[in-house]
Amino acid sequence: MLPIISIVGTSDSGKTTFLEKLIPELAARGYRIGAVKHDVHGFEMDREGKDTWRLRRAGAEVVAISSPNQFASIRRTDGEISLEEIAARFFWTEDILVTEGFKGSRFPKIEVFRSIRESKPICGPQDNLVAIVSDDAVDAQVPRFSFADWRGVADLIEDRYLKNRKKRKLLVQLDGKQMPMKDFVEDFVLGGIRGMLSSLRGWEEPRTVAIHMRLEEDD
Amino acid sequence: MLPIISIVGTSDSGKTTFLEKLIPELAARGYRIGAVKHDVHGFEMDREGKDTWRLRRAGAEVVAISSPNQFASIRRTDGEISLEEIAARFFWTEDILVTEGFKGSRFPKIEVFRSIRESKPICGPQDNLVAIVSDDAVDAQVPRFSFADWRGVADLIEDRYLKNRKKRKLLVQLDGKQMPMKDFVEDFVLGGIRGMLSSLRGWEEPRTVAIHMRLEEDD
Repeated sequence: MLPIISIVGTSDSGKTTFLEKLIPELAARGYRIGAVKHDVHGFEMDREGKDTWRLRRAGAEVVAISSPNQFASIRRTDGEISLEEIAARFFWTEDILVTEGFKGSRFPKIEVFRSIRESKPICGPQDNLVAIVSDDAVDAQVPRFSFADWRGVADLIEDRYLKNRKKRKLLVQLDGKQMPMKDFVEDFVLGGIRGMLSSLRGWEEPRTVAIHMRLEEDD
Repeated sequence: MLPIISIVGTSDSGKTTFLEKLIPELAARGYRIGAVKHDVHGFEMDREGKDTWRLRRAGAEVVAISSPNQFASIRRTDGEISLEEIAARFFWTEDILVTEGFKGSRFPKIEVFRSIRESKPICGPQDNLVAIVSDDAVDAQVPRFSFADWRGVADLIEDRYLKNRKKRKLLVQLDGKQMPMKDFVEDFVLGGIRGMLSSLRGWEEPRTVAIHMRLEEDD
């Protein structure tokens, strides 16, 4: 799975504004960036009267629109999809996923903090906080970067999460949850599946393989 | 993969209006519906100034927004994603995918036709045309349904593509393309993978398994 970094902070702390500096900086360094925003209020993505809006209103669970240069989809959900599942399902070609919000996740966090808004940061080390972006003095056990120092934050992200990263070759999800796997087990499973499939007609040294299995209860 | 039915026709022939009848009819019969619209002009999904719009403008390849009851994503693409890949990636819990447009695909098509717009249907049997929706007399070798007979069209779709459908238990995609597989091979691959994974810690009789493999050139 690609690395995930969450930019957190109270509302109006400047998360989006900071991401508008950080994303181009990381992109300029050659990384493909995915971004996901956590929304608690409910958003409206398509516009009333548009065809996609009409298909959704008619009762489609998922509505998508496909064009030569972009693809969009909206899915009704019963509860939030986990960040792990979001990362695996929707960000299959990106190098890093930055999130706006998702304070409750287990992934590393960078808090955007203004003392004019809150007396102290909302995250601590127990929240996997790895840095603070603030122009105010702040008592924290993690590095602090000024709002103007998005390059410094990009350095930290690159050093810790992007450089020399052992790219995992195998991701197995059971009911949407990642199955933990040691390196030698990963090699064993990967080799086993590859061995089985490569003996079949239609195999032509692909670069990626995706397998979806449905196991019925009566099996 | 789930069955795919394309509703095609010239622009303003009434495709969306017909889908607004057909989708609730299929949903009322207990099917979960996915819909995808083919767009040739380029669409604008999010609104200028919104956070998702700002993250995209900053250079994120994929931007998503997650809330408790819906999830949306927009992806930049180099060219169109194939219907097969769209179906496999974005419609993992639906029973059927109806498309608006996609005349060029290999999937079964229902043409919405008005003689006031065109002299004859744009599809023929060579396009995998299976029915026509029209209130006009039309010379075609497939059943014709009136615009008011969405129940008849739903019957046809249900009979041919939904009832007694052997649900495939395994989908393997090599570089996004479905690997054709005979039943006994499917059973062999499914059993092999299941056998390997079920011996590992973390396996607890899941209902679904998703596996993503990246095969490097230097392997």
